[in-house]
Amino acid sequence: MKLIRYGQPGHEKPGVIIQDQMFDVSAFGEDYNETFFTTNGLQRLAEFLQAHEGRLAPIAAGERLGPPVARPSKILCIGLNYADHARETGATPPPEPVLFMKSTTAYVGPNDDLIIPKNSTKTDWEVELAVVIGKRASYISEADAPACIAGYALHNDVSEREFQLERSGTWDKGKGCDTFAPVGPFLATPDEIGDVNNLRLWLSVNGQMMQDGTTANLIFKIPFLISYLSQFMTLLPGDIISTGTPAGVGLGMKPPVYLKPGDIVELGIDGLGASRQEVKAYAPA
Amino acid sequence: MKLIRYGQPGHEKPGVIIQDQMFDVSAFGEDYNETFFTTNGLQRLAEFLQAHEGRLAPIAAGERLGPPVARPSKILCIGLNYADHARETGATPPPEPVLFMKSTTAYVGPNDDLIIPKNSTKTDWEVELAVVIGKRASYISEADAPACIAGYALHNDVSEREFQLERSGTWDKGKGCDTFAPVGPFLATPDEIGDVNNLRLWLSVNGQMMQDGTTANLIFKIPFLISYLSQFMTLLPGDIISTGTPAGVGLGMKPPVYLKPGDIVELGIDGLGASRQEVKAYAPA
Repeated sequence: MKLIRYGQPGHEKPGVIIQDQMFDVSAFGEDYNETFFTTNGLQRLAEFLQAHEGRLAPIAAGERLGPPVARPSKILCIGLNYADHARETGATPPPEPVLFMKSTTAYVGPNDDLIIPKNSTKTDWEVELAVVIGKRASYISEADAPACIAGYALHNDVSEREFQLERSGTWDKGKGCDTFAPVGPFLATPDEIGDVNNLRLWLSVNGQMMQDGTTANLIFKIPFLISYLSQFMTLLPGDIISTGTPAGVGLGMKPPVYLKPGDIVELGIDGLGASRQEVKAYAPA
Repeated sequence: MKLIRYGQPGHEKPGVIIQDQMFDVSAFGEDYNETFFTTNGLQRLAEFLQAHEGRLAPIAAGERLGPPVARPSKILCIGLNYADHARETGATPPPEPVLFMKSTTAYVGPNDDLIIPKNSTKTDWEVELAVVIGKRASYISEADAPACIAGYALHNDVSEREFQLERSGTWDKGKGCDTFAPVGPFLATPDEIGDVNNLRLWLSVNGQMMQDGTTANLIFKIPFLISYLSQFMTLLPGDIISTGTPAGVGLGMKPPVYLKPGDIVELGIDGLGASRQEVKAYAPA
């Protein structure tokens, strides 16, 4: 299945994509949130779709998409998980996964505007494969980890490099700015994806290809990451784990290149669709 | 007002403390969560209490307390915010606040057991003054920050020092383990507290005083912290900011001292009550 949420921010309705057409499933009566995943929602949704086959209302193409899962309890991110990206930032690939957290207030729809924060000069892009957790996981083994996956989605792990690296303390300051986590267009359940370790992922700015990698180069693979993170904290249904970015970020250019108002960022992953963010300067609401 | 939540984990009911007696306010019909604070809940609760004066049902003394606010969207923590603590850890006081995040799955009641994670040898304590946000705050000025405060609470920012400092990446890995954020006993609204910059805070292990400091020594004061953090991300009603710990943590002892099963941790802040955690080894549920 491919799950979407559409409508205005904070008022998204659930939908699905079937053969490239979006359909409304408001009648299913649930948001895709922690409770949905906890209560076997994916299977119940599949049954609902079967029962309503051919009778779902299509969604118009112009509708805004929200992130495909409701605001999670946490967004965990893995740093330096592609050797080529570690190299370009001057870092050594770490002996074990690097964890940082993204504020969930950064979480937005796949095609929402990307707002450059006030006083930012180093807003950067990072195409990433995100994993959505489907089952509570604490001290889970690598063998049991796949059963904890609800699905996958495309994520732009937007990063402010000065806030992240030059402003004291951990990376979190430069990772959680508002609009810095566009996720979607859809959540794909694992059966929709062939080999998750062999997906092309790419990102362009104003049509120029900046990142063009493959998940084959992930240093730490997804079941290991889930098992590893679950040694440090309980993962809840709906939680997001973003698995790191390949080479080609602005920080790695010589000289570095950062986003400016008017830029168009487009990104995609095989089987997980594409997203597009227009870059804007911060303006008070 | 002093707000409490009581009952079994995940099923807490709202209450208040009036003149040292706990009263149930289930009839108020709301949890103390993001929606409550967003919709002027503190004022509505005050009106409810006035309307029901003398007619509230007392809560038995033995009831379990949950954290005084429902699970927040985020727990932001300030590191090295007391000069004596920075010194004992070998760090220089930072030029601007150090931010890290605590997973909200760490969030528990004030007297719940403190579980040492599997494979942990360096679980440590940190008494802290936590601020609860009452109003959405983005790019807020220091002058406007006090109006964004719902109240204050006691927090033990439990930390696993090996996970935090020796396991690659940011501090988040050692800060968000399950049960590592006991908050409460109660949320005190600002009018309940005299000068928030002159409160004694202390922590003992097995009756031996380990930390005994005062918020007078906070390097970065609360309005500055709120303003500062709101430059990096939107603060939501119900969010928690923990303001740092004074000297006396286990990491700072020579040699370091860490918690072990059977230890009793007690902590308190003037006007914000006391909490008590029994330390236990992890055991599968």
